[in-house]
Amino acid sequence: MGIGPGGERAAIERIRSRLPGPPAGETWIGDDAAVVASPSEGLLLAADLVVAGVHVDLDLVGVDDMGWKAMSANVSDLAAMAGRPLQALVSVAGPASTDLDALFGGVAEAAEHYRCPVVGGDLSNAGTLVVAVAVTGTTEGGRAVLRSGARPGDSLFVTGPLGASAAGLDLLRSGRAGDAPPLAAAHRRPEARVAEGQAARAAGATAMIDLSDGLAIDLDRVAVASGVGVALTAVPVAEGATAEQALGGGEDYELAFSAPDPDAAVAAFKAAGLRLPVRVGSCTGDREERRLDGGRLEATGWEHDW
Amino acid sequence: MGIGPGGERAAIERIRSRLPGPPAGETWIGDDAAVVASPSEGLLLAADLVVAGVHVDLDLVGVDDMGWKAMSANVSDLAAMAGRPLQALVSVAGPASTDLDALFGGVAEAAEHYRCPVVGGDLSNAGTLVVAVAVTGTTEGGRAVLRSGARPGDSLFVTGPLGASAAGLDLLRSGRAGDAPPLAAAHRRPEARVAEGQAARAAGATAMIDLSDGLAIDLDRVAVASGVGVALTAVPVAEGATAEQALGGGEDYELAFSAPDPDAAVAAFKAAGLRLPVRVGSCTGDREERRLDGGRLEATGWEHDW
Repeated sequence: MGIGPGGERAAIERIRSRLPGPPAGETWIGDDAAVVASPSEGLLLAADLVVAGVHVDLDLVGVDDMGWKAMSANVSDLAAMAGRPLQALVSVAGPASTDLDALFGGVAEAAEHYRCPVVGGDLSNAGTLVVAVAVTGTTEGGRAVLRSGARPGDSLFVTGPLGASAAGLDLLRSGRAGDAPPLAAAHRRPEARVAEGQAARAAGATAMIDLSDGLAIDLDRVAVASGVGVALTAVPVAEGATAEQALGGGEDYELAFSAPDPDAAVAAFKAAGLRLPVRVGSCTGDREERRLDGGRLEATGWEHDW
Repeated sequence: MGIGPGGERAAIERIRSRLPGPPAGETWIGDDAAVVASPSEGLLLAADLVVAGVHVDLDLVGVDDMGWKAMSANVSDLAAMAGRPLQALVSVAGPASTDLDALFGGVAEAAEHYRCPVVGGDLSNAGTLVVAVAVTGTTEGGRAVLRSGARPGDSLFVTGPLGASAAGLDLLRSGRAGDAPPLAAAHRRPEARVAEGQAARAAGATAMIDLSDGLAIDLDRVAVASGVGVALTAVPVAEGATAEQALGGGEDYELAFSAPDPDAAVAAFKAAGLRLPVRVGSCTGDREERRLDGGRLEATGWEHDW
């Protein structure tokens, strides 16, 4: 960290002035660490990176969108545990030319939207723009829903139609975002499904995951963690998206969950006033099985090389 | 996240297998978020970035040292609040060629050393290697010590001689690390001062900060936050380091703190069996004052451009 006009200290002060401050008894931005109240039950912790040129193309979306997305990706991890967010730490490494005001503008919008205040973080120069967020959350009011609890015979649900983010990216790439503004918005400003995660728990969800990398890959993860097979009958495709985008596109941040009683699942979402979840198939007893409508479900989607 | 032989899923599994697993009732690496027990008192949260080419020169230190340093920088932020670490989230963005095994080897050593297990994180490709750690901690057993509590008349202490990391870096740069292995080690493997932070609280510390950016800058931060001036009489210089390195070098991760009773401060460290802190001066009533032994204390040190 450093000082000087236009330097890091000034940047931190400018960012801090745009963000809400702490309640009495808490310390947020500006000390070595933040001091916050502990949740009375299980503490959730998650961290997700968003990297320019990898997760976002800044020729197509704004740096404010990148800030929003970094927050949403993290909150989505909490939603997938049936948790709700408490606090975010936002660290940014990037070129000196990075528009931090815009970036933190998007972060601040998301922080307010998700009620997940930014309590700290770090800034550093770097050749590549990397936004590294970590979040705390809580399962107050109930248990965390892991990936590992699915059982043969459970129904599989998703919380909404899939592929909108991937379709939106295609439109942005071809300069036709105006053709379908909701698809472009789904890519620029994805929404984490916090209320849906809690409704899924109320519906008796046995396992849950957020669809950040694509339905095929993410259901494979649930299947491996739970020791079950997956047989899909149908996948809800967002209007304007293709079946391929729905299966492999990722970054929709809808949730997928397993539950033993499909009627109870739908009823819990109805009771919460939420869009009803869509049944996409079921868990099977053959842990090798990955089936889609008679064919094989290929785990295609997002992958980093290491 | 992705899958495939040699891909991200394999990397995560390899990292996970090298790290200790959770106690019963907790979930660590491998789900959307970690589930951990909440501390019974104040929760501390901090995040610090370490960027290759900015904070570390990988021609001079190993990528394992980078992992160690990222953990130490974060734990040091907790130490500076008089806290102790609980958990770490470790996210790495970097080229596909990054030696993740070595990097997480250094992380794992630090996690064990500081009793700060890695419970989650993220991996992504990126052009620049960035290690983004976030940590939780607790002030169980006492209050957090902020930067803002120093009062005129308080004595100022540091927990040890300064400048060793900067001197070690100079030796490494000139290929003479063998001349003074302790100095090179101080740069490669800096040590966060967790016990010292707690002793400072027991000594009645009114304000505290970790010397990550250099004594001059970091004391300026305490002075601004507390609304006091700073008058230094002497600065303890590590053997083999220069006075300039001690004042501006940073990254020693010693702590500086203010306390009203200098004898009580020394006694608390003696009672804890720790190296005794060194009195470097006092806080004054003139909030503009930055004095070193008759001259002006310039706030030189580490600065990022934004």
